[in-house]
Amino acid sequence: MTSSRAALESLRLNSEEARLAREVATFDTGRTIAMILRPESREQVQECVRAANIDGIPLYPISTGKNWGYGSSVPTADNCALLDLSRMNRIVDFDERLGYVTVEPGVTQRQLFSFLAENKSNLWMDATGSSPDCSLIGNIVERGFGHTPYGDHFANVCGLEVVLPNGEILNTGFAGHPGAKAAATYRWGAGPSLDGLFSQSNLGIVTRMTIWLMPAPEYFQAYFFQADNEDSLACFIEALRPLRMNGTLRSTVHIANDYKVLNGIQQFPEGEGKPLSSAAIRRFRKTLKFGRWNGSGALYGTRPQVAEARRLLRRALGSQVTKLRFLDDRSLAFAARFTRPYRWLTGMDLSKTLALVRPVFGLMKGEPTQALLASAYWRKTTPPPPDPDPDRDRCGLIWCSPIAPADGESVTELVIIAEGTLLECGFEPMISLTMITERSVACVISIAYDREINGEDHKAMECYRQLQGRLTSHGFYPYRLGIQSMNLLDSDTARASFLSALKNSIDPNNILAPGRYIGATATDGNRGK
Amino acid sequence: MTSSRAALESLRLNSEEARLAREVATFDTGRTIAMILRPESREQVQECVRAANIDGIPLYPISTGKNWGYGSSVPTADNCALLDLSRMNRIVDFDERLGYVTVEPGVTQRQLFSFLAENKSNLWMDATGSSPDCSLIGNIVERGFGHTPYGDHFANVCGLEVVLPNGEILNTGFAGHPGAKAAATYRWGAGPSLDGLFSQSNLGIVTRMTIWLMPAPEYFQAYFFQADNEDSLACFIEALRPLRMNGTLRSTVHIANDYKVLNGIQQFPEGEGKPLSSAAIRRFRKTLKFGRWNGSGALYGTRPQVAEARRLLRRALGSQVTKLRFLDDRSLAFAARFTRPYRWLTGMDLSKTLALVRPVFGLMKGEPTQALLASAYWRKTTPPPPDPDPDRDRCGLIWCSPIAPADGESVTELVIIAEGTLLECGFEPMISLTMITERSVACVISIAYDREINGEDHKAMECYRQLQGRLTSHGFYPYRLGIQSMNLLDSDTARASFLSALKNSIDPNNILAPGRYIGATATDGNRGK
Repeated sequence: MTSSRAALESLRLNSEEARLAREVATFDTGRTIAMILRPESREQVQECVRAANIDGIPLYPISTGKNWGYGSSVPTADNCALLDLSRMNRIVDFDERLGYVTVEPGVTQRQLFSFLAENKSNLWMDATGSSPDCSLIGNIVERGFGHTPYGDHFANVCGLEVVLPNGEILNTGFAGHPGAKAAATYRWGAGPSLDGLFSQSNLGIVTRMTIWLMPAPEYFQAYFFQADNEDSLACFIEALRPLRMNGTLRSTVHIANDYKVLNGIQQFPEGEGKPLSSAAIRRFRKTLKFGRWNGSGALYGTRPQVAEARRLLRRALGSQVTKLRFLDDRSLAFAARFTRPYRWLTGMDLSKTLALVRPVFGLMKGEPTQALLASAYWRKTTPPPPDPDPDRDRCGLIWCSPIAPADGESVTELVIIAEGTLLECGFEPMISLTMITERSVACVISIAYDREINGEDHKAMECYRQLQGRLTSHGFYPYRLGIQSMNLLDSDTARASFLSALKNSIDPNNILAPGRYIGATATDGNRGK
Repeated sequence: MTSSRAALESLRLNSEEARLAREVATFDTGRTIAMILRPESREQVQECVRAANIDGIPLYPISTGKNWGYGSSVPTADNCALLDLSRMNRIVDFDERLGYVTVEPGVTQRQLFSFLAENKSNLWMDATGSSPDCSLIGNIVERGFGHTPYGDHFANVCGLEVVLPNGEILNTGFAGHPGAKAAATYRWGAGPSLDGLFSQSNLGIVTRMTIWLMPAPEYFQAYFFQADNEDSLACFIEALRPLRMNGTLRSTVHIANDYKVLNGIQQFPEGEGKPLSSAAIRRFRKTLKFGRWNGSGALYGTRPQVAEARRLLRRALGSQVTKLRFLDDRSLAFAARFTRPYRWLTGMDLSKTLALVRPVFGLMKGEPTQALLASAYWRKTTPPPPDPDPDRDRCGLIWCSPIAPADGESVTELVIIAEGTLLECGFEPMISLTMITERSVACVISIAYDREINGEDHKAMECYRQLQGRLTSHGFYPYRLGIQSMNLLDSDTARASFLSALKNSIDPNNILAPGRYIGATATDGNRGK
């Protein structure tokens, strides 16, 4: 055994079971993993990279690997060593006044949330609706999003520490300069800004990152609205965009279609035909009191700031919506204790939706929740277990997440394509639309199925391909790619060849996550030169 | 003559006078320019790049070249062909609803401002205090900043079109994908985000960019405050940071020291000793009614939003300041017409400062102004001409622009270093501090002198070097570099060698702006391989 190989062996997880588990995603990949390496420090990551270069073993870094719907922890190429960074879970810096925390890739949403609570911090994190045990960095480098004013995750970080494919350490911004006082507060640094290079890429392993945190507002109020008209979606978007653009709505607005809400409340209803028809979903809307479109968001500020935002929101949504409700900590606590009187007071039936409302309410305050994970069990015939694990439990889940400009017409066009394609293919179109920035809407379309049923893996993937094809041909490109479609954007050949040249210069042996976002195929001929 | 050379010749500006003028900056560079090329299209830029590769003539792109204080249009290496992009001045796309404009590098602040007025647009641009004839793209790729909520310029753009050093075109984000609907609204695209690579760099020529514009608020109010205590600066910063962080103050806050205000009002006062002493500046503070520290900023929103922000600002600044005044369009018009009654009403003497207040007020609404350019003539013995041109008029001006975290202690430390060093060296310390983001302060320190006086060029540059050295040794690194100090950050050797490797792979002949932000020297040995 070479010394480099020995270095890898010493960090290897000797569990065949664990290795096999990591080969499973929420859709069929047919991919194999050579081994799992579990470094616990930056130095060990460097060792792995150096050894991998010598031995020609490609490394596939994951933080916690909960990239569900996009490939979980399964690599983009066969026979990679999975570089599991979950043991690197230190919170290495924290500043209450300037509002930031510096973390390693293994730090989870739950861990940061507890840390802030323990430190009696007045800062809020931004959480995604995925598991509390998701890595913060894992989500951020994939440019995930959440629900607070810091919802566009990658826009609220700086100072990346990166292990390059040659084993050297690179810091972005000012972080590499000795004693730099603004390393954690100013993202650009001087000279080219390199942060973006290490998001959605295979050019380096992010081993540390500073994440900005928002101060808890003096007052917080969530809002919920519904509408039943088909065309009310376009009206919402047109009404809300100006409020996003003028700073009245400082956080993401989240709009779910009817299927998505039902998916959040329960599993596929027994006895109904598949896919659940439009007529059936209309029935559920009536019984369970949700709308064709269901919006949520929150207002943050002083009481007068929130009151004024509420006034503007009311005026903007006006007659577009059938219900517009506001909820704060007090009214939620009240509702939880007295669901019936609350219903009497407000007309809102919280008894059935409270289980869904509460985690969404919490998310808007940056509180991670496990509740939404149950939605991955939509088509399963057994209920979600207390410790949900969509990979292990063979939940079928493929996510497709196109971006639309925040105009009513585009968003409607996108939704028509998505709903039509999924229903045609035999799946319920569960769709969420997040007004992620002032000008853009991130749409997440779930194809949910049961991997236990023969042929469903294939059928779902066919549906995904059809959907993806239609969306891109209409100009809707995804903000994030699954491992099955990393070449999707190579149609922009100038970009693909630029990226390949970059990859070749930075990682000549192509040992880092081959094929992840930057296509390996185009440069295969140059490997090892 | 080779055909490539002929291609260059056809775009060459045949004016020896123009070439010599472009060799002049606001400090001594001793550098020569081989020729000026003036392409008027992207295709001609591509031709230039291809020809330059063949003939080995380095190209130095400028937009309008008004990079005063940092080297104007003077290249970072001798014998470059200056690639003057000012003829590429088309506004190629505009969307009132989604709030963006797509421009070429020759589009100036003045041009966009007029365009918006002509189109009766309800959108505001963000302007810098530099000349109305500055290029928008030129400022943005240098990551300049302004005064509105879109003041951090590089954070509010997307979809860069770049001519690479091999002559190919690269689009960032979604812009390279056919028919991409969100190309102008969503910055990240999918895969690595490349925008940052082309800011403060020599890796490509930005020939097009989408700039986001803010909707004009229903109501606008500027605020001004002053304080005379030495330690009030730290108090301001501590009081204002929470308001920046909680979204109450949505735009940059600008704080000027006393020297900076005097510099804005008039030239160096006749008969005073140089440098103008602390005692003298105190005298001017009294006579001209400005403070040791002078803050300004603005509130944007509905009337209730502005009223609440005003309340919070008042509460936060409280006893820290001697004066806190608010000014809107109406009161400014009133003041302009009735300076004496206004003084009687408010106690604020606008008669002398109105000339300074008005352009600052306009800047906060995104109105470009030429008024502040006069400050470059500080030490000149003749008054600023109606068409100021600091290069031509041999104004001496070196800017040093370190970043501090937005905490009182750090900002104070920075100011003490800067004021001490400049006074020691015989220059007035003109300092502005801009709370550019929620967590960071960008400081601009001007070393202003008269290039006509023998020895001053040398003395000023010595002062600059001393200042820069002290600042970095205390952890204050610049957000932007002048052509005389492009290697300043190479002390981070890992970063420098990573960038050199990038540069080598993208621009193997080193024909694009050699030495600009990415050091040429380290890779000289590999040139032309």
